[in-house]
Amino acid sequence: MPSEAPGPGPEDPRPTPSREQASAPPPGPTRRRPGGRTARIRTQVLDAVLAELGEHGYDGLTMDAVAARADVHRTTVYRRWGDVGGLLADVLDAATADDWQPPDTGSLESDLTLLNQEIQDALLAEPPIVAALIAASFRSEKAADAQRRLWDDRYARCEITVSRAVRRGELPPGTDARRLLIAATAPMYHQLLLLHTPPDPHLPGRAARTAALAAVAGAFTEPPPAEGDG
Amino acid sequence: MPSEAPGPGPEDPRPTPSREQASAPPPGPTRRRPGGRTARIRTQVLDAVLAELGEHGYDGLTMDAVAARADVHRTTVYRRWGDVGGLLADVLDAATADDWQPPDTGSLESDLTLLNQEIQDALLAEPPIVAALIAASFRSEKAADAQRRLWDDRYARCEITVSRAVRRGELPPGTDARRLLIAATAPMYHQLLLLHTPPDPHLPGRAARTAALAAVAGAFTEPPPAEGDG
Repeated sequence: MPSEAPGPGPEDPRPTPSREQASAPPPGPTRRRPGGRTARIRTQVLDAVLAELGEHGYDGLTMDAVAARADVHRTTVYRRWGDVGGLLADVLDAATADDWQPPDTGSLESDLTLLNQEIQDALLAEPPIVAALIAASFRSEKAADAQRRLWDDRYARCEITVSRAVRRGELPPGTDARRLLIAATAPMYHQLLLLHTPPDPHLPGRAARTAALAAVAGAFTEPPPAEGDG
Repeated sequence: MPSEAPGPGPEDPRPTPSREQASAPPPGPTRRRPGGRTARIRTQVLDAVLAELGEHGYDGLTMDAVAARADVHRTTVYRRWGDVGGLLADVLDAATADDWQPPDTGSLESDLTLLNQEIQDALLAEPPIVAALIAASFRSEKAADAQRRLWDDRYARCEITVSRAVRRGELPPGTDARRLLIAATAPMYHQLLLLHTPPDPHLPGRAARTAALAAVAGAFTEPPPAEGDG
């Protein structure tokens, strides 16, 4: 589900992160009705957050507009989510409940290319919801924490990409999966989110190839040379 | 001047980007007084922007607070800078007027490590002015454009680092300097600004080494293999 889960990147939550979560089993078997209602309200509210964020960005996101759009009483929204940061955090947390898995093509470079392609698609999507969520994380500590949890979840799921490559003999044993994954994906965020370089169809593959070449050369297998001496 | 100009990163403007600019030659030789006064006001105002940004962040930055702190009439500030985005853009543009040059240690990996160290220092500085400027660029198109101009200026200045390495025979001829520099520095921004990983003294050197190994392996010398066919 590429558009839904851009690898270790931020979730592109447009399709259904909240619905996904909402369709998870209710909290307990004995209280089906309340569980269902709670989940339904969460779905409505998180969908409304995404829609408002896509239309107006963080600056236009208000508790009242979300409540109105979700057709949920505003006191419910305030009681359950507290503030806009709480809403965004829940959108991001809901995204970790999906069943996204990284690509498995049989080649490290191809796996990383597809992963980067998913990230690029998410960062360039219109409306720019993923970019808006990342921007919001600069302004809300709650959203920032949730964004970090989501990235951590995605990078953790992607570690198997590296262990498969080690098992195939593509990479030296002891390759640090997280460092490799960050090296492969960092240029996507840097170029698309900060430098705003024009969209480049070669970017995902180039960043993937760079990380794969460095990995084969042992960049992620050992501690760096002691700094300060030769 | 490491703390002043973290390589291709955002300027750490605390010391003197505005003063630097203000001390540049006045616009013309015949109107010394107005040139001097204009420059002086700019210095006062941009210094006030940095101080306010450091204390209150973007959300607390107002035209009136800047005018009061700079001891400049508010109508002057409004007339000349328009809005908060205009102030931030001028802070960033002023930073490009310095004489920063990239490190030149005689080794690509060391040059890139020092560059990344400057970026790390700037991104982790207290008060977090560079981080605040980058965060502001998500909210003001003027600030975003100025931030991109600053990065472009820094990356352009750093290209000599790569051409020196090619000349020394460390890198293959035809190595794309910009792509190498982005690969080397992107993990700094990704980890420190987005992932908020705990500060790690090895990070600058590791990111530098990764990019250098990839460069030696030819990651930046040729177009990527055609996608979609073997």
